[in-house]
Amino acid sequence: MTEQLYNLNELNSFLLAKEFSSCIVLADSNTHHHCLADLLASCEALNSAEIIEIDAGESSKDLEIASGIWEALLEFGTDRHACLLNLGGGMITDLGGFVASTFKRGIPYIHIPTSLLAMVDAAIGGKTGINLSGSKNQVGTFAHPVAIVTCTAFLRTLPERELRSGMAEMLKHGLIADLDHFTQLTQLHLLDVVKLEPLIRRSAEIKNAIVKADFRESGQRQVLNFGHTTGHALESAMAKRDTPLLHGEAVALGLICALHLSVKLLHLDAEFASSAAASISRLVPLPTGRMVSITPETLWPLMQTDKKNRDGQVQFVLLEAPGQPRYHQIVDYDSFAEAWLQSVD
Amino acid sequence: MTEQLYNLNELNSFLLAKEFSSCIVLADSNTHHHCLADLLASCEALNSAEIIEIDAGESSKDLEIASGIWEALLEFGTDRHACLLNLGGGMITDLGGFVASTFKRGIPYIHIPTSLLAMVDAAIGGKTGINLSGSKNQVGTFAHPVAIVTCTAFLRTLPERELRSGMAEMLKHGLIADLDHFTQLTQLHLLDVVKLEPLIRRSAEIKNAIVKADFRESGQRQVLNFGHTTGHALESAMAKRDTPLLHGEAVALGLICALHLSVKLLHLDAEFASSAAASISRLVPLPTGRMVSITPETLWPLMQTDKKNRDGQVQFVLLEAPGQPRYHQIVDYDSFAEAWLQSVD
Repeated sequence: MTEQLYNLNELNSFLLAKEFSSCIVLADSNTHHHCLADLLASCEALNSAEIIEIDAGESSKDLEIASGIWEALLEFGTDRHACLLNLGGGMITDLGGFVASTFKRGIPYIHIPTSLLAMVDAAIGGKTGINLSGSKNQVGTFAHPVAIVTCTAFLRTLPERELRSGMAEMLKHGLIADLDHFTQLTQLHLLDVVKLEPLIRRSAEIKNAIVKADFRESGQRQVLNFGHTTGHALESAMAKRDTPLLHGEAVALGLICALHLSVKLLHLDAEFASSAAASISRLVPLPTGRMVSITPETLWPLMQTDKKNRDGQVQFVLLEAPGQPRYHQIVDYDSFAEAWLQSVD
Repeated sequence: MTEQLYNLNELNSFLLAKEFSSCIVLADSNTHHHCLADLLASCEALNSAEIIEIDAGESSKDLEIASGIWEALLEFGTDRHACLLNLGGGMITDLGGFVASTFKRGIPYIHIPTSLLAMVDAAIGGKTGINLSGSKNQVGTFAHPVAIVTCTAFLRTLPERELRSGMAEMLKHGLIADLDHFTQLTQLHLLDVVKLEPLIRRSAEIKNAIVKADFRESGQRQVLNFGHTTGHALESAMAKRDTPLLHGEAVALGLICALHLSVKLLHLDAEFASSAAASISRLVPLPTGRMVSITPETLWPLMQTDKKNRDGQVQFVLLEAPGQPRYHQIVDYDSFAEAWLQSVD
């Protein structure tokens, strides 16, 4: 259903073949600066495209900006046969996907992820969304793009910290579904884009297979939340600080915490868990010093209000063994507190 | 997929069986006054339901109100297992359906249409939407309610003009799909709710069958636009006046215009068209005197910008014979002008 493309020439051919009535590119201030010229130079099909630029950053992922984009589409005379191209990281793909999937009850859209995180995670799986009153992704849809363009050349524009953050989701895919993939990732020393490319494809494959089996997340898809119960809480707790964490950094620590919990509650092999935790720490360097004041007491209520939970219980995805995730695992406070302290030790 | 219920006791049993985590009723100022007490008295399952009331009228069908409802749901702590009950006419079912289908990427919702128009048309078929900058339904989704409750007792609260307006969509269903249904409708003299009930069910059946065959309106579903090309333009043209038309009134005249065009362009039997037009005029009394200043020149550009059209062409659904609609019929200005003048004659 979604076409997978690997470079901008393939995108150009795709656009020419599809004969959309018009094309609109949605970019943020970063991708407008770093990526748009390349995109337009490679795609003559975008010669007369309209460009919408919004501010970079998570704060643009809200209803006011969505409304501005809908209004712009209306002003351009955009019809149902037009295509919106979302050029950016997860903020742009989530927001642009939501806007396109609801404009005139849904127009075609294409994701062109420019961050590693978006290539292996945000752009895949058909979840769209915006934040509401500071709560993440409270309004959104399930809707597939007509194509995803994974053009790793864009990764060269990313700071190394962003690139390492994106690795967290790839490591997660390895842990929940493919130990070989995890091992290959841990053997990377320098983050070389050429070496990353096949690993990015494999990560995308893993996520696609899980999503295909359970598009609307009624069951099995929840395994993709491995590392995210604690990760999201940590991200929220740090968001108000001067030095917030990147999503992948929070998830990396969430993965380590979930590994420790898995040892205690599902008898995951302790040696494997320690060595996996060490690899994650090495690949996604964690500013643990900065988190000394984040206590289990701070995180617990944030985890209780997670949109997957109910009645104040806290559920985790845990590993019984590598590649064998179990979702809906209810975790008590004491077990979590112990695992958290092991994680930031 | 959508459960069809016919009274409030059935709704109560449905709610008890489903065990939603919470229920929220969305009403407008009219249905809050006329219908809410009956609903709550008949459904103990709604004992602890939250109530959201918004102003009646099309101007509430916008992003600001949608945003207010999302915020209220968030404040109530509404989770993905909650249910939104939309109690009202087409404005409430369109808006409530949109809000529910996008809150946390979609929570279950139930339509309880209280107008004839909503029972036979708006609440059926899974189209949701809000207006944008005064343009109708520019933002929305395709999403099915978990149940529709057709409780004709609510029709007793409707003014006769509203009831007659709702007949237009039923007449349309008869013309495009079931001549017997059309004939039975034309034989009604008083609009008696008891006599209407089986006809409402038949109309709903016809629409459901058409929608089922083409949910996302890529083809055959477009036949439901019979009468709506001119109807929508007329509704827009009259909206700015002191005495706007009801949707069904505009559609009734649109049906008559489409019948005249069908005679000219698709050789629909002229005698049938005249007699059908007379029946429509009788059942849905048309304030034609008030439309003397609406000219074909006023309507044409409004029809060109209809969201189904492309490149300035105007497409109609026309009838080759009763029950044999043809969509994508391109109509020239002169033919339209002639048919319009016959219609308001």
